[in-house]
Amino acid sequence: MGEFELIDRYFKQAATQGRAVLGIGDDCALWRPTLGQDLALSCDMLVQERHFLPDADPHCLGHKALAVNLSDLAACGATPRAFLLAMALPVANEAWLASFSAGMLSLAQAHGCELIGGDTTSGPLNLSITVMGEVPTGQALLRSAAQVGDDIYVSGHLGDARLALEARLGRIQLPAGVLAFCAERLDTPTPRVALGIALRGIAHACADISDGLLGDLGHILKASQVGAELDVAVIRTLCASAQSVALPADVLNTCTLTGGDDYELLFTAPTQARAAVAQAALDSQTPVTCIGTITASGVVLRDHEQLLDAASFSSFDHFA
Amino acid sequence: MGEFELIDRYFKQAATQGRAVLGIGDDCALWRPTLGQDLALSCDMLVQERHFLPDADPHCLGHKALAVNLSDLAACGATPRAFLLAMALPVANEAWLASFSAGMLSLAQAHGCELIGGDTTSGPLNLSITVMGEVPTGQALLRSAAQVGDDIYVSGHLGDARLALEARLGRIQLPAGVLAFCAERLDTPTPRVALGIALRGIAHACADISDGLLGDLGHILKASQVGAELDVAVIRTLCASAQSVALPADVLNTCTLTGGDDYELLFTAPTQARAAVAQAALDSQTPVTCIGTITASGVVLRDHEQLLDAASFSSFDHFA
Repeated sequence: MGEFELIDRYFKQAATQGRAVLGIGDDCALWRPTLGQDLALSCDMLVQERHFLPDADPHCLGHKALAVNLSDLAACGATPRAFLLAMALPVANEAWLASFSAGMLSLAQAHGCELIGGDTTSGPLNLSITVMGEVPTGQALLRSAAQVGDDIYVSGHLGDARLALEARLGRIQLPAGVLAFCAERLDTPTPRVALGIALRGIAHACADISDGLLGDLGHILKASQVGAELDVAVIRTLCASAQSVALPADVLNTCTLTGGDDYELLFTAPTQARAAVAQAALDSQTPVTCIGTITASGVVLRDHEQLLDAASFSSFDHFA
Repeated sequence: MGEFELIDRYFKQAATQGRAVLGIGDDCALWRPTLGQDLALSCDMLVQERHFLPDADPHCLGHKALAVNLSDLAACGATPRAFLLAMALPVANEAWLASFSAGMLSLAQAHGCELIGGDTTSGPLNLSITVMGEVPTGQALLRSAAQVGDDIYVSGHLGDARLALEARLGRIQLPAGVLAFCAERLDTPTPRVALGIALRGIAHACADISDGLLGDLGHILKASQVGAELDVAVIRTLCASAQSVALPADVLNTCTLTGGDDYELLFTAPTQARAAVAQAALDSQTPVTCIGTITASGVVLRDHEQLLDAASFSSFDHFA
């Protein structure tokens, strides 16, 4: 199977019924922007061994490669529109490609996000996606908009994906049912697109949690030139697994504060917007929890009466 | 040096003065489209060993990674606007990054194409760029617009890049001056952006030549459901090196017809547009040569009185 046959067979049919002026098969894809909308663009590259294990299920991998990109759109409050997929493959394995493309394209379809172009080459497995969304002019959620006094919220659950990774690496043991739940969080994360859109005009700052809560909060604090106080006792409860299995507090702290791969939204909103935030959560069917407050500077981690040292929790850095 | 420091030091400054609403440093870049313009989007992934040798000069590599993407915009007649860079690096080597980013950003600046986002990770060296351009609504040049009777043109030179590759692989010997010229064609190709823009409303079909003339012509013929007759004796003269060194006709045929890495524009235009094509070439300071005619079907390669077998020339396929 050649490069162009591969594209035709597994990826092209998805691009024939969308609103792209011209999809896969020319030098460029053509797209007609919607009047009154800004484009939001993001790209994420997934590399074997670094972002996923060599035996990763291809259907899950297809889902996840797109999901992490949709999560970036969610963080801006953008509506997903289209994406481009560049991939390097060691071999053109048909069964793998069929499963990978099915996983990716079913998530794409669920979000009305059209595959409009890409590139395929041979090489060490590498999946690079650029995603494009639209958001009404000036309404995008930014990292830099947090204000002192804002509530800090996080959507869904934290730390379960990290527990699955620790279990796979043999560092912890989890009951089968708990591992299955955690593995689903790690392998097929749910991008919080509906919540991001619902938070337009309500949230101040927003980011998605990919490298761990503290690391991604740090991006908001730096961009907004503010600080934060977090309630670690509340954050620990966001690890869903903790409801079914007893986990030491330090494991829960590490997984929820620095776990990574959560793909939840972390956002701030003024206290007057509490009812609006609750309504946005309801409308988007996405639970949100208030975990702290934006302060003038510094990071304080409060665990009941005890203060934890934020510096003892480090987030993931690809070159650290 | 961490991931975020790397981005700040080598890539971020380029994104502070452009027209992006928001560049590097948030979950998404934000871009406000120009009224009355379609977006042209393309992505190309470059992999070590496959697209460049391990000892490739990083300044050239930075240039080339962006140039091959700009060439796709040129093929559509689009004006470059912005790009996103995802890269996997085995190590964060500062000297390499300084040179690589300088090569890339100087070409970007020359074309007013702004770096607005990206991703960095560790992994086997992989450079994936998504480029975005604008073209007035409905005026993009497409592969599918060739018509029977059209002249077929190619810009600039063909085959010299392939000669450099053959020499580096030790398969042929070239005089130092010729090798230097060929190496420049291979390592720092010139995307024909100005010509692509000048051909709006004049050319019918257009594509860029990345995998070799016959292969990329094949894409136009398939998309347009037409055939072609090419004058191989004329095409051979497009190898600039042949003016300074005697090369066997079969080497010249292979290099010009299937060489790859030329990044010239291949386009068709009606015979009535010959003066307009010549003017577009003049305006864009880009030589163009008529190499054949679009026919109803099939591919005929005419070399003076002799007919060559097109099937004996195969283009590059990443999975063949």
